[in-house]
Amino acid sequence: MSKKIVVVGGVAGGASAAARIRRLDENAEIIMLERGPHVSFSNCSLPYHLSGIVEDHESLVVTNPQTFEERYKIEARVQQEVVKINRDKKTITIKDATTDSTYEESYDKLILSPGASPIRPSNIEGIDNDHVFTVRNVEDIRQLNAYVKGKNIKDIAVIGGGFIGVEVAENLRLAGNHVSLIEFADQVMTSYDNDMAQILHKEMVDHGLNLVTNDGLDVIGDGFVRTQSGKKIDAQAVVLAIGVRPETTLAEDAGLEIGETGSIKVDHNYLTSDRDIYAVGDAIEVYHRLLHKPTRLALAGPAQKQARAAADHIYGIPNRNLGIIGSSSIHLFDLNAASTGLNARTAELAGFSYDSVYIMPADKVNLMPNSNVMHFKLVYETPTGRILGAQAIGKGNVDKRIDVIATMIMMNGTLEDLKDVELTYSPMLGTAKDVVNHAALVAWNQLNGVYREVKVTQVRALVENGACIIDAREKNEFNSGHLKNAKNIPLSEFRDRLDDIPTDEPVYIHCRSGQRSYNMVMALQNLGFTNVWNISGSYLGINLYEYYNDLVTGREKIVTEYNFN
Amino acid sequence: MSKKIVVVGGVAGGASAAARIRRLDENAEIIMLERGPHVSFSNCSLPYHLSGIVEDHESLVVTNPQTFEERYKIEARVQQEVVKINRDKKTITIKDATTDSTYEESYDKLILSPGASPIRPSNIEGIDNDHVFTVRNVEDIRQLNAYVKGKNIKDIAVIGGGFIGVEVAENLRLAGNHVSLIEFADQVMTSYDNDMAQILHKEMVDHGLNLVTNDGLDVIGDGFVRTQSGKKIDAQAVVLAIGVRPETTLAEDAGLEIGETGSIKVDHNYLTSDRDIYAVGDAIEVYHRLLHKPTRLALAGPAQKQARAAADHIYGIPNRNLGIIGSSSIHLFDLNAASTGLNARTAELAGFSYDSVYIMPADKVNLMPNSNVMHFKLVYETPTGRILGAQAIGKGNVDKRIDVIATMIMMNGTLEDLKDVELTYSPMLGTAKDVVNHAALVAWNQLNGVYREVKVTQVRALVENGACIIDAREKNEFNSGHLKNAKNIPLSEFRDRLDDIPTDEPVYIHCRSGQRSYNMVMALQNLGFTNVWNISGSYLGINLYEYYNDLVTGREKIVTEYNFN
Repeated sequence: MSKKIVVVGGVAGGASAAARIRRLDENAEIIMLERGPHVSFSNCSLPYHLSGIVEDHESLVVTNPQTFEERYKIEARVQQEVVKINRDKKTITIKDATTDSTYEESYDKLILSPGASPIRPSNIEGIDNDHVFTVRNVEDIRQLNAYVKGKNIKDIAVIGGGFIGVEVAENLRLAGNHVSLIEFADQVMTSYDNDMAQILHKEMVDHGLNLVTNDGLDVIGDGFVRTQSGKKIDAQAVVLAIGVRPETTLAEDAGLEIGETGSIKVDHNYLTSDRDIYAVGDAIEVYHRLLHKPTRLALAGPAQKQARAAADHIYGIPNRNLGIIGSSSIHLFDLNAASTGLNARTAELAGFSYDSVYIMPADKVNLMPNSNVMHFKLVYETPTGRILGAQAIGKGNVDKRIDVIATMIMMNGTLEDLKDVELTYSPMLGTAKDVVNHAALVAWNQLNGVYREVKVTQVRALVENGACIIDAREKNEFNSGHLKNAKNIPLSEFRDRLDDIPTDEPVYIHCRSGQRSYNMVMALQNLGFTNVWNISGSYLGINLYEYYNDLVTGREKIVTEYNFN
Repeated sequence: MSKKIVVVGGVAGGASAAARIRRLDENAEIIMLERGPHVSFSNCSLPYHLSGIVEDHESLVVTNPQTFEERYKIEARVQQEVVKINRDKKTITIKDATTDSTYEESYDKLILSPGASPIRPSNIEGIDNDHVFTVRNVEDIRQLNAYVKGKNIKDIAVIGGGFIGVEVAENLRLAGNHVSLIEFADQVMTSYDNDMAQILHKEMVDHGLNLVTNDGLDVIGDGFVRTQSGKKIDAQAVVLAIGVRPETTLAEDAGLEIGETGSIKVDHNYLTSDRDIYAVGDAIEVYHRLLHKPTRLALAGPAQKQARAAADHIYGIPNRNLGIIGSSSIHLFDLNAASTGLNARTAELAGFSYDSVYIMPADKVNLMPNSNVMHFKLVYETPTGRILGAQAIGKGNVDKRIDVIATMIMMNGTLEDLKDVELTYSPMLGTAKDVVNHAALVAWNQLNGVYREVKVTQVRALVENGACIIDAREKNEFNSGHLKNAKNIPLSEFRDRLDDIPTDEPVYIHCRSGQRSYNMVMALQNLGFTNVWNISGSYLGINLYEYYNDLVTGREKIVTEYNFN
């Protein structure tokens, strides 16, 4: 007898599960129910309609119900909202939005892929106005775009600096709008540490975004928003992107177990607490491989894997569940950024014993066209050297480096492994010592106490406290901008100027990117200096970290002139 | 007492070793001896001077002796050829080309990094003419470029289709010259399998290179070369790039052990058979991690690692020697190509039990700008599923995918690991199911006998023998070009046309890229068809594989119209 399998939700996880089931069982009856008007649209591409990069909103729809039927014999029904699971009868109750009637459908196996919905805080004045938008599906983005274009709107406020908020803000800005991005925390995109986030902040500001951090939305008025700090910001349209809430109502009402994170609890094979009901995608909680606890994760790749695993399990095919590490990337104006695993903040919060390095080598041989600095931060466990995570930002292929780190994490790699991994190289595409090899070598040195370093975030205090800071760059570099109080002793001169270097206090050394200061630190140690420190991130890192912080807080500058190259 | 360390060779390995020693020991006396006029030049960037991408040949020189002295207290002497090692006295004899005199220098430890020299076959008529060049250093490339520009030369023959030959040919072509690339084997760049190499062949032909394979150089005449098959090809300049020979003379004369590959034999720490002499770089033989035997490898990344390891060993720092796997990449006109580990040919030659898959997914979400097909081939061991190697070619970031594979190989990963690895994704940079995850899933299916496939290289025989080939694309796609003899049964129609599919003979199915044919194969198997095969590489792969083969051999076409999109 053929199985009857019903899939609730027709995007990402749902569509993947249905297609996989068909490949496993030509005879199964497969019904896919989607509340919205479209199945299988390109979720992650939605913001790009706002800039016109995706010109036609209809092209966001990848597959229509007819194709599902013709190619996969899958009955995809749109505008069908599942309102109840009747577990005792093994049926679901469906509300048909096209006829406003309800009906029941039986199932042998049920797969829930309901997703997550944008949060709309009810306590904010004006939140229900017509010019307040959220972005979840093709229809949402079409409406937002039509409103902005149709009303010839110029000033838009985007609330929330996560992935969706940042991508929406970027694409609206690319379309020529005046866009304010308002973020409650002190930085956008929490998958990046605060030092790395400053690079993203600068990119946004440089491209004309009005970036407001440390501030929340208070009131949505007619043509403006007011923030909690009292700022009034012009905005004839408002986009809420402050987060998503897993769609658990259906599961909860049916008495399925909900996990500690508030998402649907599933087992190794994505089975819920009912042996005939699976759940996948943004509505479930997943196990974090590094944190060893459940977490929420709204990413397309893992959703697809879960869908396949659930489908396989229905047919007795075992699944390996390695947990998630959280790998992601983003393109932001002229930059790419990518991250995986833990950053220093999440490692700290989770109580890890860890350390990090921050380097900024060239992303390809610097004689080649479009060679650029890449900012790379590696986080590792101490004293084991196990790799915990990394972040990379630059104009080049940062995602390549982060994918290597993600692979290392999945394979339980250490700094030793990372420094030895043999990667591809040609001058047009990279450097002989790849960025990740380089980072591993620096981290390995630090792990083994070969030398010590202070972080870019600690430099302000050193400057303000009058610490001895040595700038190891050449004189002309120093003269074009340097740290206040810094003493210029170029690497090429220091051997003749050892008397200028104190022995009775700590000495902190930097150069442009860290290469020359590393050599000077090693030499001084060899010569018997016992209290010398390298400044991680060096001058380039200090410039970036301090630049935006000065910009938004009006703090006193500790750098005489910024220099980002 | 301070150590005296002499480094023979001032490029890549030599310069890296010297700089590392200085960091480990501020008091060491370090002398670096280079036969040529420059130390530390960007070897891999040399060809780019010919196109003007690197406009000034002097910028190819990364560091000069003065900087070595000032920054690192390393005495770098150029135009100093070491002609003899006097092991009993622990001295070397050096010929100073600037004075034509010889002198001796003592050492405590000696590091040899002599490199490899271009092969110049002596038995070819005209080989010693003034218009015959090789490319090893800055001076070589300056001379070649000056000759081509100065004599206003238009026709150039490049002999040999390895990395250097291909890059030299490309850059000369970019400069507007008529370039013939002559390769003795049936393909260029043997790190790629023959099917993948056809993509490179097409790129070269499309960009106006005169590509001659299966043919060798016979005579160099005045204004022409003649090949072994008798072709006369215009050439007022000739570049020899048929391979390199490790510089072992010095080591051999000193009685150091030479390995079975003809290169200098070294141990785990790059020590030669003399406990005070190390050797690194292109002149040594290295251990292949997958083949379990010594091999030769002329790549910059491994040379740097060896140099560091040798320097460390002098100072008692242990080194981990994991062997090499051979990762490389190249930029070729509008394409990027990368490979790592074994290809199918080298796996076959080494007697591995192996299989491969060839897929061609989009390199990023296809709604995004510059989304392109990526050709990806994965080679794995059977029945273990251990990953042995991969090759990728396309306009996008192929090196990113190969670096993930390289990491997997270094970490002893299997197909299971590769299908589960969680990588970064955003629509501008990739796809939710990354190319490597996709390849692993296909390979895993094959490894587990979920379905069977034939290779793109086997299709011609199937067509010529009148096998039943089904084209699962839609009718309009079929009509714009298809395999001779193929029967068009679209995936969207096959369930109503099961009677058109024979059960008494093998059925081979393809579509455009393999996705639809995979679904049809699975459905037919489910319906009881026992002899259905997927065609790996599908129509896109067949087009590419057959195109160049038809082009150069004049074989009868098996495709009615080529279609590469």
